[in-house]
Amino acid sequence: MNTQLPIRVGAVLFDGFELLDLYGPLEMFGLLEGEARISTIGERVGAVRSSSGPSGVAEIPLADAGGFGVLLIPGGIGTRREMANPVFLAGLKRLAEASRIVATVCTGSLLLAKTGLLDGHNATSNKRVFELVKSHGPKVQWIAQARWVEDGKYFTSSGVSAGMDMALAVIAKLYGREKSLEIASRAEHEWQEDSARDPFAAKLEGASCPLGRVAGC
Amino acid sequence: MNTQLPIRVGAVLFDGFELLDLYGPLEMFGLLEGEARISTIGERVGAVRSSSGPSGVAEIPLADAGGFGVLLIPGGIGTRREMANPVFLAGLKRLAEASRIVATVCTGSLLLAKTGLLDGHNATSNKRVFELVKSHGPKVQWIAQARWVEDGKYFTSSGVSAGMDMALAVIAKLYGREKSLEIASRAEHEWQEDSARDPFAAKLEGASCPLGRVAGC
Repeated sequence: MNTQLPIRVGAVLFDGFELLDLYGPLEMFGLLEGEARISTIGERVGAVRSSSGPSGVAEIPLADAGGFGVLLIPGGIGTRREMANPVFLAGLKRLAEASRIVATVCTGSLLLAKTGLLDGHNATSNKRVFELVKSHGPKVQWIAQARWVEDGKYFTSSGVSAGMDMALAVIAKLYGREKSLEIASRAEHEWQEDSARDPFAAKLEGASCPLGRVAGC
Repeated sequence: MNTQLPIRVGAVLFDGFELLDLYGPLEMFGLLEGEARISTIGERVGAVRSSSGPSGVAEIPLADAGGFGVLLIPGGIGTRREMANPVFLAGLKRLAEASRIVATVCTGSLLLAKTGLLDGHNATSNKRVFELVKSHGPKVQWIAQARWVEDGKYFTSSGVSAGMDMALAVIAKLYGREKSLEIASRAEHEWQEDSARDPFAAKLEGASCPLGRVAGC
C-alpha cells in the first residue's frame, strides 16, 4: 500500500474504555517512532476514565477531528453507553468515513456497527459478547472464528489482547511484514500472524456477558 | 499467600514511560474487578506523557503515597532521566519498601536497581538494554534468560509485553492459578506461564540500545 509518512494514528477514548484495547495497539504504532504520530480523541478533551480506573487523556475533541491514516476504536464496558449516544456515533461515523483504515478492538466493533459502516462487511469481536454484538449489527457478516478480520479499510479484532496482533497486521499492510516483525521483537511480543487462528472462539462458545459490568468486554 | 481483599495496586508514571509496560499489567489487575483497586502515582499529579505520545493521568503524588499490595514500575526511555533523579528515586525506594510485592517491567528494573533494593536479588530486564541495566545494578544477580524473575517480594520482567505474563504470575501468587487462567481467557491472552522461556534472550544477544531514544526500552 502506498503510504505517506508519518502515518497519523487517531485513537478514540470514551469513559469505560478497556485499557489494553487502546494501549496495546498504540504501543505497536508507537514503536514506529518517527513514522507514525499518535493523537487521542474524545467527545470532550481531558481525562477519560477506563473501565479499570486509570484515566487516559483525550487531546482532540471528536467534533474537530479530521480523518486519520489509521483510526483506532477500542472496546470496553463504556461501549454499552456510547452505542446509544447519537452525538458520539455521528462523530465516529464522520471520522471513520474520513480515515483510510479503521481498526476496532473487542466491542469497538459494536460501535462501528452502530454507525452502519460495517453493513455488508466481514467483521469480528470478542467471543464473550458475540451474540450481543451480532444483535446490534444484523447486516454485518460476523466471523466467529478469527483473531482479527480485514475487509477493505476495516480491521476488526477479537477481544482485548487480539488488538496487538491486529495492529501488527495493519502495520504490515502499511509498512511491510518485516517492519511488523521488528516491532514485535522490540516489544518482546510473539506476534500471532495467522488471523484465522482463534483458540478463544471454541473455548468461549455459549459464554456471554451482555449488558452488565463484565470485565474484558 | 494470605491476602486481604481488595488488593491495592499502585502504578508509577513518569514522563517517557512505555505504554504497554504500564497498561498491559494494569489490564490484568483490572480484570480482578472488585478484588483489586488501582491507583496511579506520579512525582506530580496530572497528565504524564508516554514515550509514544499519549498521556496517562497520575492521581496520587509520589510523596504522599503509602505502600501497596502490588507496586508496578514500568520502563520506557524516561527511565534514563529518572535514574538520575534523587527525589524520584528516594520516593520510589520508600514506596517499594512499604509495598508487599514490587513488580517491574522492562527498564523499570533499572529504576528499582538504582534504589539499591534489588542488591543481592535475582532479576531481569529487557534483553535489548541488558548491558546498560547490568552496569547500573552491579550487585544484582541479573538473569539473562527469563520472561520474568520472582525473588522474594520482587518480580522483574523482561521487555514490554512480558509484563502481562508477569502480572498473571503475581495474580496467581495472590489469588491462585485458576484466577490467572480465567483472566487470561477474558483478555483473550495466551498466558506464557513458563517464566524461564525467553525466545528474545537468544535473538537479541549483543543488541543494545543504551542511552538514546530507542523505542521499546
